[in-house]
Amino acid sequence: MDKKIHFDTDYMAGAHPAVMEALCATNLEETPGYGEDSYTLEAKKLILQACGVSEAESEVHFLIGGTQTNAVAIGSLLRSHQGVLAADTAHINVHEAGAIELGGHKVLTLPSHSGKVDAREVEKWIDDFYADDTWPHMVQPAALYITHPTELGAIYSLAELECLSRICRDKGIYLYLDGARLAYGLAASDVSLKDLAHLCDAFYIGGTKCGALLGEALVMRKGIAPGFFSIMKQHGAVLAKGRVLGVQFRRLFTDGLYEEIGRHGLTMANKLKEGMAVLGYESIGDSPTNQQFFRIPNAIIEKLRQIASFEVWGAPGKETTDVRFVTSWATCPEDVDRFLSLAPKA
Amino acid sequence: MDKKIHFDTDYMAGAHPAVMEALCATNLEETPGYGEDSYTLEAKKLILQACGVSEAESEVHFLIGGTQTNAVAIGSLLRSHQGVLAADTAHINVHEAGAIELGGHKVLTLPSHSGKVDAREVEKWIDDFYADDTWPHMVQPAALYITHPTELGAIYSLAELECLSRICRDKGIYLYLDGARLAYGLAASDVSLKDLAHLCDAFYIGGTKCGALLGEALVMRKGIAPGFFSIMKQHGAVLAKGRVLGVQFRRLFTDGLYEEIGRHGLTMANKLKEGMAVLGYESIGDSPTNQQFFRIPNAIIEKLRQIASFEVWGAPGKETTDVRFVTSWATCPEDVDRFLSLAPKA
Amino acid sequence: MDKKIHFDTDYMAGAHPAVMEALCATNLEETPGYGEDSYTLEAKKLILQACGVSEAESEVHFLIGGTQTNAVAIGSLLRSHQGVLAADTAHINVHEAGAIELGGHKVLTLPSHSGKVDAREVEKWIDDFYADDTWPHMVQPAALYITHPTELGAIYSLAELECLSRICRDKGIYLYLDGARLAYGLAASDVSLKDLAHLCDAFYIGGTKCGALLGEALVMRKGIAPGFFSIMKQHGAVLAKGRVLGVQFRRLFTDGLYEEIGRHGLTMANKLKEGMAVLGYESIGDSPTNQQFFRIPNAIIEKLRQIASFEVWGAPGKETTDVRFVTSWATCPEDVDRFLSLAPKA
Amino acid sequence: MDKKIHFDTDYMAGAHPAVMEALCATNLEETPGYGEDSYTLEAKKLILQACGVSEAESEVHFLIGGTQTNAVAIGSLLRSHQGVLAADTAHINVHEAGAIELGGHKVLTLPSHSGKVDAREVEKWIDDFYADDTWPHMVQPAALYITHPTELGAIYSLAELECLSRICRDKGIYLYLDGARLAYGLAASDVSLKDLAHLCDAFYIGGTKCGALLGEALVMRKGIAPGFFSIMKQHGAVLAKGRVLGVQFRRLFTDGLYEEIGRHGLTMANKLKEGMAVLGYESIGDSPTNQQFFRIPNAIIEKLRQIASFEVWGAPGKETTDVRFVTSWATCPEDVDRFLSLAPKA
Repeated sequence: MDKKIHFDTDYMAGAHPAVMEALCATNLEETPGYGEDSYTLEAKKLILQACGVSEAESEVHFLIGGTQTNAVAIGSLLRSHQGVLAADTAHINVHEAGAIELGGHKVLTLPSHSGKVDAREVEKWIDDFYADDTWPHMVQPAALYITHPTELGAIYSLAELECLSRICRDKGIYLYLDGARLAYGLAASDVSLKDLAHLCDAFYIGGTKCGALLGEALVMRKGIAPGFFSIMKQHGAVLAKGRVLGVQFRRLFTDGLYEEIGRHGLTMANKLKEGMAVLGYESIGDSPTNQQFFRIPNAIIEKLRQIASFEVWGAPGKETTDVRFVTSWATCPEDVDRFLSLAPKA
Repeated sequence: MDKKIHFDTDYMAGAHPAVMEALCATNLEETPGYGEDSYTLEAKKLILQACGVSEAESEVHFLIGGTQTNAVAIGSLLRSHQGVLAADTAHINVHEAGAIELGGHKVLTLPSHSGKVDAREVEKWIDDFYADDTWPHMVQPAALYITHPTELGAIYSLAELECLSRICRDKGIYLYLDGARLAYGLAASDVSLKDLAHLCDAFYIGGTKCGALLGEALVMRKGIAPGFFSIMKQHGAVLAKGRVLGVQFRRLFTDGLYEEIGRHGLTMANKLKEGMAVLGYESIGDSPTNQQFFRIPNAIIEKLRQIASFEVWGAPGKETTDVRFVTSWATCPEDVDRFLSLAPKA
Repeated sequence: MDKKIHFDTDYMAGAHPAVMEALCATNLEETPGYGEDSYTLEAKKLILQACGVSEAESEVHFLIGGTQTNAVAIGSLLRSHQGVLAADTAHINVHEAGAIELGGHKVLTLPSHSGKVDAREVEKWIDDFYADDTWPHMVQPAALYITHPTELGAIYSLAELECLSRICRDKGIYLYLDGARLAYGLAASDVSLKDLAHLCDAFYIGGTKCGALLGEALVMRKGIAPGFFSIMKQHGAVLAKGRVLGVQFRRLFTDGLYEEIGRHGLTMANKLKEGMAVLGYESIGDSPTNQQFFRIPNAIIEKLRQIASFEVWGAPGKETTDVRFVTSWATCPEDVDRFLSLAPKA
Repeated sequence: MDKKIHFDTDYMAGAHPAVMEALCATNLEETPGYGEDSYTLEAKKLILQACGVSEAESEVHFLIGGTQTNAVAIGSLLRSHQGVLAADTAHINVHEAGAIELGGHKVLTLPSHSGKVDAREVEKWIDDFYADDTWPHMVQPAALYITHPTELGAIYSLAELECLSRICRDKGIYLYLDGARLAYGLAASDVSLKDLAHLCDAFYIGGTKCGALLGEALVMRKGIAPGFFSIMKQHGAVLAKGRVLGVQFRRLFTDGLYEEIGRHGLTMANKLKEGMAVLGYESIGDSPTNQQFFRIPNAIIEKLRQIASFEVWGAPGKETTDVRFVTSWATCPEDVDRFLSLAPKA
């Protein structure tokens, strides 16, 4: 029996018990396929409601995973000669095996600031691009991809998002937000779903890492991607049993479960961070999210590994190694306590 | 409450109860992601075992749906200027919104015989192709796509598959079999998984329509598609919680559940077909599978619709309309009896 | 020294002498690249003038060959899930090695009538398509591709083109015309460039087969393909020395040379056809264009081959073989006379 | 009449007079299409001979332009999930409007050293890549793209190329060299065509910038890209009148014309560079090729512009502006003299 405490990542457990219960409760019902069932329709309404937008303003689509959602959404917004701006550390630039390029588009890179892009650098990039007379020979930026929280545990403030949104509108490019860990991002920032629905042209509400067995909910401004269902289908992104996603998101957006999941993950992260500080471990980057980064003396790291699993972050150094600890809705306070009680002082 | 009996299709219910139970039983366990968990590894072994092949001969990959599996598998086998042969009614040619073309490949069409291709027509097509001196200007066939059972309820005999396999090997093209409804196809034919593993270069064992919540198991000859994991990832076809697929297929291939599901679906189909014959309805095509086709007098069709739901197949005629009734693991004998007792005579 | 008379095809010689002279006369001039030179700009104006449209209505782009022009133009007009309707014998469906599919699009096929499509069949195809409830799962037609003259030597009448144009506008799809052999098509039909510019959304004026060394002139309704220069560049379809195309088309559209080329090719074709009739050869299809098809007794074909080269069309029959003879601007009346005087009676 | 002297770029004039003469001399001959004519076959032999390789070792293909050649060649060598390494300033990464991405592949960037890549950095990049356990989630490098000379006027020494070649072979990736300006690169370096044919898996001999009207000659190791003709065709890269390229390259590789062109371009560049030094202008980067870069005081630049045309390189500075002067086979010594006599002192 595995006694280890797992901080490797936030997709190690199945679904939140309430979500699994909803799947079980509806399991034998027979419903129409391809997302035309009542659960899916209801889930879409609940999400629009949480976003403070009407069906006339926005539309919701359920997809299966993050890479797929990014590829389908971004692909649906760009013409063939256009590309998407992103931080050079962005998931679409590094860890999606070229999904954007498979769709024929270039990822145009900006400097990463803990995974965030800087609004002034975005603006300058675009200005410099069009100041170069040869720009028609180059891939033209038509969307900006950001993550919230980022792969490195950073979050955007509302003011920063407003600034990015304004620049994108000024420059005529789409603002797309990857919310794979959005529950934790919402809990950690002053940004709400309502803000996102108004500031972004498209964004997705992560399910896989935030309580669902699998699934992501894409929210787009109405009509910006005509034929979107067919584009999903063409990408193999339409589930025959679409209600598997609908049932889950319906539950996640009932009784504030999605927010609760975010808060719990954060509470666990803060508990861990505080405990580690007491033990003398150095926090890196002071992440406000469910991903916490620490610098561990090499002499201690093996001992820690016997208590818990976690990921090494980057190449190990001579004296110390940087590691990532991730909490989630599935993290028990008892496990954090146990870990902190067993961990040696730094 | 919905009293209607549903014969629309075989993906209307959730997962087979035993599969759902396995998902629930493992739900809170924390496992590594991306299919590296023990459930997935075990499921792969069980499938290889059922196919009578070793890890040195074949490999198993779990994907999410049929369109995705077809696009990823076929795309991984073709070079850019190559295409895939298929019946003109084939799912990849009609109902996948151009997923094969999105990957850059042409579907080269053959006449459909209830969804099947004829071995001699395949051979002649290829011979004629290379007899035309301009063939280097044309898309070259590098794979043959077949379905078993077909979209129209037909099955291949073992002798037919052997013949197709021999022709494909002679001509140097891959044989790929779409097994979206394979459980029912296995139950209805003299073809076994062991046969498929030896006769096909790649085929998939359908989960979505055969007891799983979602998921398909692709079996490929070892090494024919180098970098296949990355190709899956590039198509957004790798689940973070890969074990969701592993747990399900592990259960489906334990205690003969997959075969049982196939047999049950067929038993229900035969029960329905016999009852309809007694009532005087004309069966079309005499399908041996879980899809049954009937010609219904237009005067009666509305009465039938009040009892059960089903799909109209093709354009309605003046006097009669063709319809499709589909059974599955989820079809109850009581429901079939109830339907037959309520249905008017033809 | 080659004494044979060549009727194989219309791209066997280099450029029309007047075109080559224009290339030589400007050869050492130094001009800006990428089509920004004065020759190219002037050629565009001459073409717009010949088409009877203003710069506000239409735009002209020069590309290098037919396959490239089709792929770039059609690709620029379709969204990813859309396809292009074409006769099943169409060049884009058969002889472009999957160029349209490389761009991610499906060719949707219609019956061929000597390479032409029938307006009522187009209309019915689209109506049937949308009458099928599953159409969002299928590739949606967004353009109709036609050739004039066709690969099989047929031409559209003005009335036929008007009908196709009206249907396309009614149905909301683009009408695209491949004019690889347009000079001969214009000479053989009652259709003018002005008609094409008003009836088609895009069409190309073939250069390669009609007097140019290489090059095609694409005429599009203004603004229907934003970013078209970049899309050309992305397809490798922008010549550094763009003026090579501009100089040629400027000459072709000066002093009625393009029309003259078309007329000469037709005059030679008619001379040949009449002579063959006198000799007793059967004409197939009664082509009005520069492609003539004959049915040759097998006993005679070798003798003909010693006099002239031509293409066998389709598989040879037991008694007779169908062949194609092609004339062009480069065909000399003396050669046709010599061929007819040497050819045996049928 | 334009009295200005043009140093803007090396593709402003048409073809070298001897090349144009060859086109004219063969213009009215009728030859088979698609590169099956005797001129093309002979040109291929001459190139193989110049490269010191046999038909069993290498193959030659003629394409139309640089962007097209890069896209077709690189596309033919990569599987879908693979990418190509290149300096971040590389033409394929900046100035081809996403042609590589249109083919589905990512450009993986390395630091640029005047457009060159550093062998140790290449090696380290690949080692670091595979040291990261998540590499199967990332685009895998399968080819290295280099230019010789680079877009910035730098050249590789033979020793450097040998080192890059060794690393590529060790790591199992292809080495591909873009020789858009190869004539000038060969003249400026100790690297011969024979060296390239042995060190590279594929490279192209630039025609467009080195004496041809248009056209590039791709040399590949035999058999590394099966179906290459069809792949070219699919990209619209096969000329119907293929002999237009064959005739030109046959002439370029007769009587040492290609070398002579390279030497002349360099002689003119050196003459210019020396004259500019005498006038007190600062040379940037000390380019040994036909591209020369100078830093011009802003007070003088307008005067220079009245004498000659040239390109501003990068954003102008406060006091000085960097500019590029390009010579070619078409540059006359008299024009260089005239320019130097008219140019003011720096």
